[in-house]
Amino acid sequence: MSTHAANPTACLLIIGNEVLSGRTRDLNIHFIAGRLGAIGLPLREVRVIPDITDIIVRTVNEVRARYDHVFTTGGIGPTHDDITAECISIAFGVPWEPNPEAMAMMSARYAPGEFNAARQRMATMPRGATLIPNPVSFAPGFSIGNVHVMAGVPRIMQGMWEGLEPMLPRGRPVVSRAVHATGLLEGLIAAGLSAIQDRYPDLDIGSYPYERPNGNGVAIVAKGLDAGEAEAAVAEVVALMREVGRTPVMGEPPA
Amino acid sequence: MSTHAANPTACLLIIGNEVLSGRTRDLNIHFIAGRLGAIGLPLREVRVIPDITDIIVRTVNEVRARYDHVFTTGGIGPTHDDITAECISIAFGVPWEPNPEAMAMMSARYAPGEFNAARQRMATMPRGATLIPNPVSFAPGFSIGNVHVMAGVPRIMQGMWEGLEPMLPRGRPVVSRAVHATGLLEGLIAAGLSAIQDRYPDLDIGSYPYERPNGNGVAIVAKGLDAGEAEAAVAEVVALMREVGRTPVMGEPPA
Repeated sequence: MSTHAANPTACLLIIGNEVLSGRTRDLNIHFIAGRLGAIGLPLREVRVIPDITDIIVRTVNEVRARYDHVFTTGGIGPTHDDITAECISIAFGVPWEPNPEAMAMMSARYAPGEFNAARQRMATMPRGATLIPNPVSFAPGFSIGNVHVMAGVPRIMQGMWEGLEPMLPRGRPVVSRAVHATGLLEGLIAAGLSAIQDRYPDLDIGSYPYERPNGNGVAIVAKGLDAGEAEAAVAEVVALMREVGRTPVMGEPPA
Repeated sequence: MSTHAANPTACLLIIGNEVLSGRTRDLNIHFIAGRLGAIGLPLREVRVIPDITDIIVRTVNEVRARYDHVFTTGGIGPTHDDITAECISIAFGVPWEPNPEAMAMMSARYAPGEFNAARQRMATMPRGATLIPNPVSFAPGFSIGNVHVMAGVPRIMQGMWEGLEPMLPRGRPVVSRAVHATGLLEGLIAAGLSAIQDRYPDLDIGSYPYERPNGNGVAIVAKGLDAGEAEAAVAEVVALMREVGRTPVMGEPPA
């Protein structure tokens, strides 16, 4: 990851027992990873942690000190297991209190009498938080310091992301070039590939076996900040694949 | 997670730049989480970390001290970016060396001259490791101490899992009971649900909104070690859903 050294860094916390228990298949890592790479704020670590106050507080404080930006998903609904906002308040050492802007916005969306205590919980945030709009179900997320708190439901999280992303710092986008060959085994090209990696120390060159109905193979992906460099490395991989008698095809294998 | 307190604990490390970059969608968390819950060795944390030696070593040492068992996926192939085995050796302070059993097994599977240096890398392991058989592509995983090292390709990982699981300690399986209601909003039942959670402190009661073509709703899941207790709590949730005029349906909503 030497190529990313100049870019700001990001960490993602997936907060929720339901992912750790296998009840829910996480869909947020993949979305957020791709979007962060595209704006040059690469994701360096993900943690999935349970809905337990001490663990959330400790983890948030650890990673917000280590990374430039921290994103969280999950635990901001109205029910008793939604404790993320309160935990973020504890982590930052600030009161957890009704956010005036969120209270006003949300109370306007409910019929008289329906903005009950549970729903007001969704407008209760760390003091000093700024809102992340929610175009899907309107209860907002929030940012405080370098921590950005979003919903866990993928469609709601993605809606929040569109409002949050323009507020984030941008680095140099990570560019990616790939080539693949069906019928190739990694063991046939590993030595040559290692030599190519050595010649391009500013790139991350990854080797990824794939399995497809039409045949298994290997995809080689070069990532870095310089498209020309990635293309030059991939050209060397193309030659290497031909040397071992396989037919390289540019790009990733079809899904 | 009070219910799981007596059970051994597990942590999963997903090792690979390709998940952090958004190139690859992880499929291993969901599989492993479900299987661990079923044998009473619940997953307490997942970390996704890059292919960087210092980070892998530090993370392995941190989590193997904190959890009873640590599982890793990724980085055990023949290419330069496959550094997991070497990192585990460093973490344990033991030599990274050819494993006699793995060398013998693998050399027997290749034609003369094809068991090259890169492929021998897949049989190079921490001293003292015991093998995890690989019924899919035969290069084995391994266990050392409380750390279990598996492939990242889901089908290969799952094949290794079948051999590994019988070797793991078992706790009391986590049982789960669910009920859902379409047209329900969490805010309508949050107060009642919190009271139910308070009456069943040994259960984890989670509330999960869902979106389906036939209508959105909320699923309530009670997890614990006692099926009768989970069923009693769900019966109270059923009554709560009826109180707010919705029609509870037992189980999770259809996928």
